[in-house]
This record gives sequence, C-alpha cells and structure tokens, in this order.
Amino acid sequence: MPDFHRSIPEGDDKERLVCRDCGFIAYENPKLIVGSVVSEGERVLLCRRAINPRRGFWTLPAGFLEMAETAEEGARREAWEEAQARIAIEGLLAVFSIARIGQVQLIFRAGFAAPGFAAGPESEEVALFDWAEIPWAEIAFPSVHWALRAWRAAAGRPLGAPASNPPEDARGTVPLPQGSGL
Amino acid sequence: MPDFHRSIPEGDDKERLVCRDCGFIAYENPKLIVGSVVSEGERVLLCRRAINPRRGFWTLPAGFLEMAETAEEGARREAWEEAQARIAIEGLLAVFSIARIGQVQLIFRAGFAAPGFAAGPESEEVALFDWAEIPWAEIAFPSVHWALRAWRAAAGRPLGAPASNPPEDARGTVPLPQGSGL
Ligand SMILES: [Zn+2]
Ligand SMILES: [Zn+2]
Repeated sequence: MPDFHRSIPEGDDKERLVCRDCGFIAYENPKLIVGSVVSEGERVLLCRRAINPRRGFWTLPAGFLEMAETAEEGARREAWEEAQARIAIEGLLAVFSIARIGQVQLIFRAGFAAPGFAAGPESEEVALFDWAEIPWAEIAFPSVHWALRAWRAAAGRPLGAPASNPPEDARGTVPLPQGSGL
Repeated sequence: MPDFHRSIPEGDDKERLVCRDCGFIAYENPKLIVGSVVSEGERVLLCRRAINPRRGFWTLPAGFLEMAETAEEGARREAWEEAQARIAIEGLLAVFSIARIGQVQLIFRAGFAAPGFAAGPESEEVALFDWAEIPWAEIAFPSVHWALRAWRAAAGRPLGAPASNPPEDARGTVPLPQGSGL
C-alpha cells in the first residue's frame, strides 16, 4: 500500500497526502451526500442502519453521490438501495455543510413513485413514522434532525429556499455526543 | 507513480481505479463546485480565465470546495481568490449537476461586502457587466449561462427554490461546442 504523509506539493498552497514511495498525491475532496425525506401523508420514511457508523440508529435514505449521476439520480438510487423505495423527487429541501468531516449534504423532499418499501442490505429495518412517533433519541446524525425539522417546517407548502445548518452548528463542526454508538 | 487500471474491488459493485503494484484504490468521487453570481445594482461580476480549460473566456468566481469548508465559505474564498472581492452571500441561487464530468455546482446569489475587486492569479481580467453587455459568445461554460439566466429570473425578488439544469441538458451531459478553446 502507498505510504502517505502530509506535505505541500510544488505549486500548491495546502497540505495534501503524498506517497513517500512514488509521489502520488491523494487529493482529499469534500464528499457529496444525497438523500431525501420521503413522506406518505403525514408519515416519513426512516431506515435503521445495519452498518457502522451508528449501526442500529435511524437515518434518512442517503449516501455518497457516485460519478456520472445527477444529484437527483443519486438520491433516487439511495432510496432504492437502502429502503427499496421508488421515489418521486419534488425539489431541494435542505443543503447542509458538515465541515468537520468535509461533507455537503443535499436533501430532497420526495414522495413515493410506486407503493412499497423494505430493508435494503444496509438497513436493518425501514418504517414510516408519524411525527409524534419519530424515535428522536435513536436518530443517527444531527443532520437527520435538521432535515426532519426542515421537512416539518415546509409541510404542505411549496418548497422555497432550501434550509441550511441551524445557528447552533452553522459550520457542522459539533461532534456527535459521547456514547452515541460510533 | 501508481499504475492504475479499472477493476471491481472485492465487496464493491462498481469499477474503480486500482493500482496494479500495491492495490491502492483511488475512488473517483464527484467534485463539488461552489461559486456565486455577485452583483452591484444591475451589474454582475465576471472573471476572464487566465488558465485552462477555457482560458480567455468569462466565468463566475467559482471553484472546488476544499476540505473543512462550508459551501458558503468556499464560495467566499473563490470570490476572493479569483476576483479579490469580499462578498456577502444572500442564499442559494442554483444547483447544477454536470454528470458528464462528475460535478455538482452550488451557485449562490451575493452582493459586495466591501467595495472593490481585481484580477486574482487565475483571472486575466475582472469586470462588472450590465445584462445587455454580457459577452455571451465568450462565456466559458454552459452552467455560467444557466446561472446568469437564473439570476436574471430572480432579480429583485427573494430567493425561492434553487434553479436546476435546464430541460435541454437535464443531466449536464452535453459537451462544449467544438473549437470552444478547450
Ligand atoms: Zn506510491
Ligand atoms: Zn501503488
């Protein structure tokens, strides 16, 4: 395997991961997460994670955008992979920056394009929850809270400007609470 | 340098770039571009590119998001680097997917936070243009057209849902015209 160390390549102005053996530069770029709040009537779709981080906690169907996908295509693929759901995207609900881990999340608002859902390989369980039944103490990530609140705030209304980070974590730098299962 | 070939790593379901010598997997992830339409009154700020691709053509201040930045921080940094402008971001104007090259672009609407602008190292020239004076034939990328049209359509109004790709290039797969300087 390559033996990476941090140094500033010639002509650059930032530290990168450079291989000591062959000089290969592994640029670390922020990753793009695409996902959706999928609802039916008053209920929203959540997936209980079968994988780490945060195995056993509930999340939205979301994951890394792949090459050659549009953001919407990626969100539809993730809903299929994680929740075996065919979704119809309405529009962009929220954009969150999680600077601590170099992520930007694009969260869409969606409904079902076809009936049915089931746990995909990365989910232990998939279910629709009424707002009052959402297992808030068992939500996987802060941004899932944020997205659900944004969904609730816009419920029954046309989508406007997307939500962004809440003021208490404007840069997405607050780590998960200790003992949160990570 | 590593000797990459395309193959499907164990446990994966897509072709990746894998080094023949050491097995290192160079995941290709979509890149996130952050930029802004910066305006003063009726005029918008454009930069004439001093670097390839599309050297000599006009573009918005925009570039790759870096690790540990929020999307807004990245857009402010790019406005400073390329146009020596301190900008105040109002909100998200557009989200474009350029699937052909694995890019998602987040384009903000912004004004000047402080007076003044000048060409940074990657720009030959920076200028404010009235709508009627925009050098349409010398615009660097289709998405710059799209962003300027979205800006014009929303001018004088609060930002609503962000614009996305136009129907004629819904996935961002139409290549640049031949002889366009690439
Ligand atoms: Zn190496
Ligand atoms: Zn190697």
